[in-house]
Amino acid sequence: MLQAWGEHEVVSAMLSFEAALARAQADAGLIPESAAQSIIGTCKVELFDVARIVRESARAGSLAIPLVKSLKETVAMFNPQAVQYVHLGSTSQDVIDTAMALITRSALDLIHADLTVCIEALLGRAERHAADPVLARTLMQPASVTSFGLKCMGWAIPLLRSRERLRRSAEQGLCVQLGGAVGTLAQMQGKGPEVLMRMATDLGLTCPQASWHTQRDQWVSLGCEIAVLVGNLGKIARDVSLMGQFEISELAEPAEAGRGGSSAMPHKRNPVACMVSLAAAQRAPQRAAALLAAMVQEHERALGGWQAELAEWSGLLISAHGAVHAMAQALVGLQVDTDRMHANIDSLRSVLPQSAADEWFDPGLAQGAAATVHAQLKFWRAWQSDAKNRRDPGDEQNERIVR
Amino acid sequence: MLQAWGEHEVVSAMLSFEAALARAQADAGLIPESAAQSIIGTCKVELFDVARIVRESARAGSLAIPLVKSLKETVAMFNPQAVQYVHLGSTSQDVIDTAMALITRSALDLIHADLTVCIEALLGRAERHAADPVLARTLMQPASVTSFGLKCMGWAIPLLRSRERLRRSAEQGLCVQLGGAVGTLAQMQGKGPEVLMRMATDLGLTCPQASWHTQRDQWVSLGCEIAVLVGNLGKIARDVSLMGQFEISELAEPAEAGRGGSSAMPHKRNPVACMVSLAAAQRAPQRAAALLAAMVQEHERALGGWQAELAEWSGLLISAHGAVHAMAQALVGLQVDTDRMHANIDSLRSVLPQSAADEWFDPGLAQGAAATVHAQLKFWRAWQSDAKNRRDPGDEQNERIVR
Amino acid sequence: MLQAWGEHEVVSAMLSFEAALARAQADAGLIPESAAQSIIGTCKVELFDVARIVRESARAGSLAIPLVKSLKETVAMFNPQAVQYVHLGSTSQDVIDTAMALITRSALDLIHADLTVCIEALLGRAERHAADPVLARTLMQPASVTSFGLKCMGWAIPLLRSRERLRRSAEQGLCVQLGGAVGTLAQMQGKGPEVLMRMATDLGLTCPQASWHTQRDQWVSLGCEIAVLVGNLGKIARDVSLMGQFEISELAEPAEAGRGGSSAMPHKRNPVACMVSLAAAQRAPQRAAALLAAMVQEHERALGGWQAELAEWSGLLISAHGAVHAMAQALVGLQVDTDRMHANIDSLRSVLPQSAADEWFDPGLAQGAAATVHAQLKFWRAWQSDAKNRRDPGDEQNERIVR
Amino acid sequence: MLQAWGEHEVVSAMLSFEAALARAQADAGLIPESAAQSIIGTCKVELFDVARIVRESARAGSLAIPLVKSLKETVAMFNPQAVQYVHLGSTSQDVIDTAMALITRSALDLIHADLTVCIEALLGRAERHAADPVLARTLMQPASVTSFGLKCMGWAIPLLRSRERLRRSAEQGLCVQLGGAVGTLAQMQGKGPEVLMRMATDLGLTCPQASWHTQRDQWVSLGCEIAVLVGNLGKIARDVSLMGQFEISELAEPAEAGRGGSSAMPHKRNPVACMVSLAAAQRAPQRAAALLAAMVQEHERALGGWQAELAEWSGLLISAHGAVHAMAQALVGLQVDTDRMHANIDSLRSVLPQSAADEWFDPGLAQGAAATVHAQLKFWRAWQSDAKNRRDPGDEQNERIVR
Repeated sequence: MLQAWGEHEVVSAMLSFEAALARAQADAGLIPESAAQSIIGTCKVELFDVARIVRESARAGSLAIPLVKSLKETVAMFNPQAVQYVHLGSTSQDVIDTAMALITRSALDLIHADLTVCIEALLGRAERHAADPVLARTLMQPASVTSFGLKCMGWAIPLLRSRERLRRSAEQGLCVQLGGAVGTLAQMQGKGPEVLMRMATDLGLTCPQASWHTQRDQWVSLGCEIAVLVGNLGKIARDVSLMGQFEISELAEPAEAGRGGSSAMPHKRNPVACMVSLAAAQRAPQRAAALLAAMVQEHERALGGWQAELAEWSGLLISAHGAVHAMAQALVGLQVDTDRMHANIDSLRSVLPQSAADEWFDPGLAQGAAATVHAQLKFWRAWQSDAKNRRDPGDEQNERIVR
Repeated sequence: MLQAWGEHEVVSAMLSFEAALARAQADAGLIPESAAQSIIGTCKVELFDVARIVRESARAGSLAIPLVKSLKETVAMFNPQAVQYVHLGSTSQDVIDTAMALITRSALDLIHADLTVCIEALLGRAERHAADPVLARTLMQPASVTSFGLKCMGWAIPLLRSRERLRRSAEQGLCVQLGGAVGTLAQMQGKGPEVLMRMATDLGLTCPQASWHTQRDQWVSLGCEIAVLVGNLGKIARDVSLMGQFEISELAEPAEAGRGGSSAMPHKRNPVACMVSLAAAQRAPQRAAALLAAMVQEHERALGGWQAELAEWSGLLISAHGAVHAMAQALVGLQVDTDRMHANIDSLRSVLPQSAADEWFDPGLAQGAAATVHAQLKFWRAWQSDAKNRRDPGDEQNERIVR
Repeated sequence: MLQAWGEHEVVSAMLSFEAALARAQADAGLIPESAAQSIIGTCKVELFDVARIVRESARAGSLAIPLVKSLKETVAMFNPQAVQYVHLGSTSQDVIDTAMALITRSALDLIHADLTVCIEALLGRAERHAADPVLARTLMQPASVTSFGLKCMGWAIPLLRSRERLRRSAEQGLCVQLGGAVGTLAQMQGKGPEVLMRMATDLGLTCPQASWHTQRDQWVSLGCEIAVLVGNLGKIARDVSLMGQFEISELAEPAEAGRGGSSAMPHKRNPVACMVSLAAAQRAPQRAAALLAAMVQEHERALGGWQAELAEWSGLLISAHGAVHAMAQALVGLQVDTDRMHANIDSLRSVLPQSAADEWFDPGLAQGAAATVHAQLKFWRAWQSDAKNRRDPGDEQNERIVR
Repeated sequence: MLQAWGEHEVVSAMLSFEAALARAQADAGLIPESAAQSIIGTCKVELFDVARIVRESARAGSLAIPLVKSLKETVAMFNPQAVQYVHLGSTSQDVIDTAMALITRSALDLIHADLTVCIEALLGRAERHAADPVLARTLMQPASVTSFGLKCMGWAIPLLRSRERLRRSAEQGLCVQLGGAVGTLAQMQGKGPEVLMRMATDLGLTCPQASWHTQRDQWVSLGCEIAVLVGNLGKIARDVSLMGQFEISELAEPAEAGRGGSSAMPHKRNPVACMVSLAAAQRAPQRAAALLAAMVQEHERALGGWQAELAEWSGLLISAHGAVHAMAQALVGLQVDTDRMHANIDSLRSVLPQSAADEWFDPGLAQGAAATVHAQLKFWRAWQSDAKNRRDPGDEQNERIVR
C-alpha cells in the first residue's frame, strides 16, 4: 500500500490522465489523431526520470509542472508537431486530482479485499460461537452474559455497512477532474463536457457534474467514510486486546514465527495487529478533520487548502489499509478460548450473591443471544446476495469503479 | 436550535421513548395494557420538575437515572401496579440515544429548511447572472474570467449533494436504540425484535439491524455528513467575504437595521453571516474528529467514549444550523454589484500586456461559462424532480423520518 | 465549574473590566473622577438584567454590545454626564477577552486545588507502596515486575510538571486585553500604555507587551497546556480502569453511596471518575486543535477565527476541571489490593518456564523500583519546597495571578 | 528537512544512542571497556545496510529490532565477546525515543535559524515603516488607520515569544529515554541513574527525572509549541496573501525566476510562501491533536498510542520547517507598496462622510502607531540582549541543547 502512493505510481497515474486527455480530445476532434497517438505512446512511466521530476517538483511546488515539461520534451523527440497538444486546456490540479482518484481506487480495492476477509471471518465465528457464553462488559465491568457469537456479529455488522457505504461514496467521489485553469474549460471550444465524459469512460472513473477544484464535498465525504471504517476496526482491536490480557485470556492473536515477538522477553507475545489498528484509529480522525477543515477553499482554486488536503489524503488511506490488513490476519487466525470464557463467568458468579449470579450471569443467557445471531446472520446473508443481484443490471459502471 | 437541545426538549424526547416502549411492550403482550396507559399518560414533560432532574443527573452521571426515578414516582401516584413496568428491560443508553435521534431529526428538519433556502437562492442567482463576467481567482490572484452565475452554481452544487447525502445518512443513522443492559434484550422474553420494530414505527425512526450501543458507524457517518455541509457553507462564506472586501466590493451581505453594525464605527458593516459560517467551519471538523475518535468503544457499552460522543454531538448540530441559517439570510438578500465585477476586470486588463488581457481576461469568456450554467441548471432541476418522483413509492418511511 | 462560565459570571467579569477601565482612565487623567465613580458604582451585576442582555446578544452577535448599552443606560440614571466616558476607547473584544482571562484565572484556581489533591494522594501512595510488587505491563501484556509505588510516581510526575508549566503559562497568557478598535488605542491620547498597566495591576492580570486581538500564541499555548494536563489525567484513568477490571481487581475507585451505581444491576460498580477523565481526554485534544487552527486570524481583528476560539475555550476548561476533580476523588479514596497484585504475579509465574518466571517476574524486582521511588520522592519534595522559596520574593504578582 | 527524517538519519541517530549507551555503561563499570570500544567503533551508519534494516522493520514492527540484530552481527565480526553487551538492558522504545529527540534537536536548530531570519526581517521593517499609514481591517472590512510598522510588530512579537517558549520546551522535552523493558532499568544493577546521566551529557540531551515511556507530557508540550509557531506563521501568511490580492496590492512576495510561476498563465505570480505556510497551519493543529490524544497510554508501554504519536511527530516538524523557511524567504524580500497603502486609504475616504473619514481614516493616525512601534522595539531589543546575558552563566547546557 505504501508502494501505491510512491512516486513511481503517482507519476504513472498522472501519465494515465495525460494519455486519456489526448485520446478524448482527438476523439472529440480537438487535436489531430496523430498527435494523440504520439502523446499516448509517450505516456509510459518507464520513459521518464521519475527521480528528477520529483526533485524539480520541490522547487516548482507541484509534480505536475516538471512532469508536463518532461512529457513535452519526450513527445518533441518523436513528433515535434504534437507538443502543442500536450496537456491542452488542462491545469495542474486536473492531473493531480485525477491521479489521486486513480490511486485511491486501487487503494480501495486492496482495502475492500481485506475488509471482506474480516467480514467473512467474523460471520463464520458468529455462527460457530452463536451460543457460547461470554461475559458482557459495560463501563469496563462485567454486566451480564452474552454469547461470543453475538460479540462477533457486533464487530461484523459495522464492517458490512462500511463496505456498502464505501462502495457508494467511491461511486460518487472517484471522479475525473477536468476544469482547466479556472473550471470553465474555456480552451476546449465548447467540447469540454464531451472530453470529460470520454475521459471518465476511458479511465473508469465517475464523470463529475462539475469541476470540483474547490468543491470537495464528495471527496471529503469519501475520506470520512474511510475514517469511519478505521473507527470500526479500532473498536474490534480494543475489544480483542482487552480480551487477550493475561488475566482474561479469552482471545489471542494468531501465533506466528516472527510475529509480535519481543527480542528481550521470549515469554511475551504482543497483539501487534491490534496495535496497528488502534494506532490507525487514533490517527485517522485527525486526517478526517484536516480534510474537513481544508474544505474552506478560496474562489476557483485555493491557496493552501488544496495543498493541505492533498498532503493528508495518502496518510488516511495508508492507515486504513494498515488497519484492515492487520485485522484480517488477526481475525482469520484468532485463537478463541471458550473454556476460559466460561471460567471467567464462573469466577464472577462465585463472588456474587446467588440471586445476582442467577439473574445476570446465568450462562444460559447465551441461548437468547444465539437466536439474535441466527436472525442477524440470515438478514445479512440475504442482504449480501440481494445486493449482488440488485447491482447486476444497472451498476456495471460502478462495479468497474470499485471492482 | 439552541432550544432544541435544551433540557426541556431532551427530557421530553426521553419521555417519548418511555411512552413508546410501554406502548410497544403492551402491544407485544409483555406488559398489561392498563400499565401502558398509565405510563403513557404520565410521559408528559409538564408533569416533571426538569430542573431537579438536571440537578440530580450531575451526581448520577446521566439524565436517565433521575428521570426514570421521577417517572416511577409519578406513575406510582396514579397506578402503583404499573411502576414495575416502567423502563422495563431497557438501559440508560437506550433512552438517551433514542432521544438524541429524535432531537437530531428535528434539528435536521430545521437545517433542511434553511439549506433549501440557500439552494434556491443560489440557483436563482446562477440563472440570473449566468453570463455576467467576474474575475476567476486562483491562489488568491486573478487567473481568468468566469461568470458570476458559474460561481453561484459552484456554491449550489455541493449543497444539493449534501442535502441528498444527509437524507440518506439520516435514514440510516436515525435509529431507535433498544438493547437493554448488554444489547441482548434478555428481559424481553424473545419479543425484543417485535418491541423494537413497533417502537420504530411509533417514533418514526429507523429500526436498526442490531443494538448500536458501541457500533456507532451510522451515527458518526451522519455526523461527518453534517460536518461536510458546514465545510460547504464555509467555502461560500470565505468567497463572499473575500468578494465583499472594500477594495473588491463585488458582493455585500444584505443591509438590515441592527445587523453587523459596529457600536464604535458607524461607517462599518460587518459580514456577520460569513463570520458565523466561518466560525462553524473551524469548529465542525474537530467535532467530527471527536466523534470518529470516540468510536473505539469497549465491549457492550463503553467507558468514556460514549460520554464523549454524546457531549460533542449537540455542538455539531448547533454549529451546522447556525451556519446554514446565517447563510440563508445572507444569500437571499445578497447584494451583487455586476458593474464592479466588470470594473475589476477592466482594472486588471489595464495593467496587463494586451495579449494576456485578451487571452485570459476577455469579459466575453463569461459566455462559455453561461453555457455550462444552463446545462448544469437543467441537470439539477431534472434531478430534483426526478428525486421527488423516485422517492414517492418506496421511501415513504424515510420521507417521514427526515420529512 | 459550569457555573464559572455561566452568563452571570461572564457578565460580572465584563463589568469588572469596565470598572477597571474607568478607574485607570480617571487615574491617568483621561476622564473625570466623578464619572469614574459613577461607572464603577454601577458595575455591579445585581443591577443588570442578565437574561435580557443574553437574549439581545444573539442578535448583536456579541455580549459586549447589549452590555455596554445597558451599562450606559444605568449610568445615565445616576449621572448623565458620565455616560460618554463608559467603555471609552475600548472595543468589544477588549472586554470579552479580559473577562475570559478573569474567569480562566478562577477556573485555573479550582483546577490547581484538585490537581494538588491528586499529586499529594499519589506521592503518599508512592511512598507507602514503594516496594509492593505489581505486574508491569507493556503492549497490554505482562512484561516484568515493578512496584505499585513506581506506578504511582509515574502518574504523579507528569502532574507535578503540568502544575508548574500551567503556572508559567498562566503568568504569560492571562493578560488584560486593551487595544481599542484596531489595536492602537488611538482614542486614549497617548495614555494607552499607562491605562493598560493600571488595569493589569487592578485586575491582577498580566500586562501584555502588545494588544493580542489577533496574536493568540500565549493564550493558545495556555490552552494546549490545559489539554496536556487532561492527557496526563486520561493516562491515569486508563491505567486505573484497566487495573480495576474484575479479572484483575488490583484497584477500585472508592465506594460511596450513589456513586457509580447501576439502577438495573445492583452488583455493579462503575469507575465513574475514570469515565469522566477518559471522556475529557478524548475531547480536549479537539479543543486544542480548534484553538490552534483558529490562530490564523485576519488583520487587526478576525472574521470567524476569534469567534470560533471563544466558543471552544470554555469547553476545554470545563473538561479539564471535570477530569481533575473526578480523579482527585478517585485517587484519595483509591482501593489498593496488594494481595491481588501479588496473586496476579504468582498466577503468571505458574504458567511460565521457571527461568522466565525468575528472570522477569521475581516479586523481588520491586526492591529496585523502590529505590527509584525514594530517589524521585526526594527530588520532587526538594523541588517543591525549592520552588516555593524561589518564588517567594519576585513572583508575588504571579502568585496572585494563579494563586 | 525531509532528509533529517530520512531513514539514513534515523538509523544514524539510533546508532548514536547505542554508542552512548556502551560508553556510559563502560564508564559506570557495567561492561568491559574493550566491549564498549568495539560497539562504539561499529556504530557508524556507513557500516550498515540501511535499506535492508528498513525492509525488515516492516515485519518486525519497529526499526529497533533489525537494527540491533545488525549491530550485533557486525560487532560479532570484530569482537565476539562484545556481542552480549550490545543494547544491554535497553528496550526498543529507548533507542527510538532518544533518536527522535536527537533528530528533533537538529530540526529545531533549522527552525530556529529561519525563525530568526523572519524576526529580524520583521523588526527591520517595523522600524522602517513605523509611521507609514495603512488601513487597519477588522472582520475583513476597513476599520481605521494603523501603521504598516505596527502590523509588522504584530507579526514579529508572537515569533519572538514562540522562539523563547520553544527554547524552554526543548530544554524540558529533549530528553534521553532509558527505561529498559518496563521503566525500572532492572538489568543495570542499580547503576541506571548513573548511566542515564552520562548518556545525557554525552548526547547533549536533557537527563529526564524518570523514564517517559508512557509519560509524554514534556514531549507533547514541545509538540504543541511547534504547532503554536505554525499558527503564528499562518496568521502572517493570511495577512500577506490578503494584502497581496490584485485589488489591494499593498504587498507582494519577492519575484524570483521559477518561483510561484504558472506554466499556463505567464501574467500570474502566486504567493507560494503563503501557500506553504497556510497549508502547514491547517495541518499542524491536527498533528497536535493526535499527539494529545495519544497521551492516554497504557501501563508501562502502550498498545497503539506510542506508535500513533511516533508516526505523527515527523510530519509536525516537517510542516513547521516548511512554513518558517518559506516565510523567511517571503519576509526578507517582501515588496511593500506604501503608495498603494496610502491610495487605498484615500479611496475609502472618498466614499465616506467627511466626519467618519476624519475620525477613523486620517492617515495621521499612523503617528500614534509609530510611537507604539518604537516603544515595543525598545522593549524587545532590550529583552533580546537581556536574554542573552541572563542565559550566559547558568544555561550553558541548555544552550548546547538547542544551540
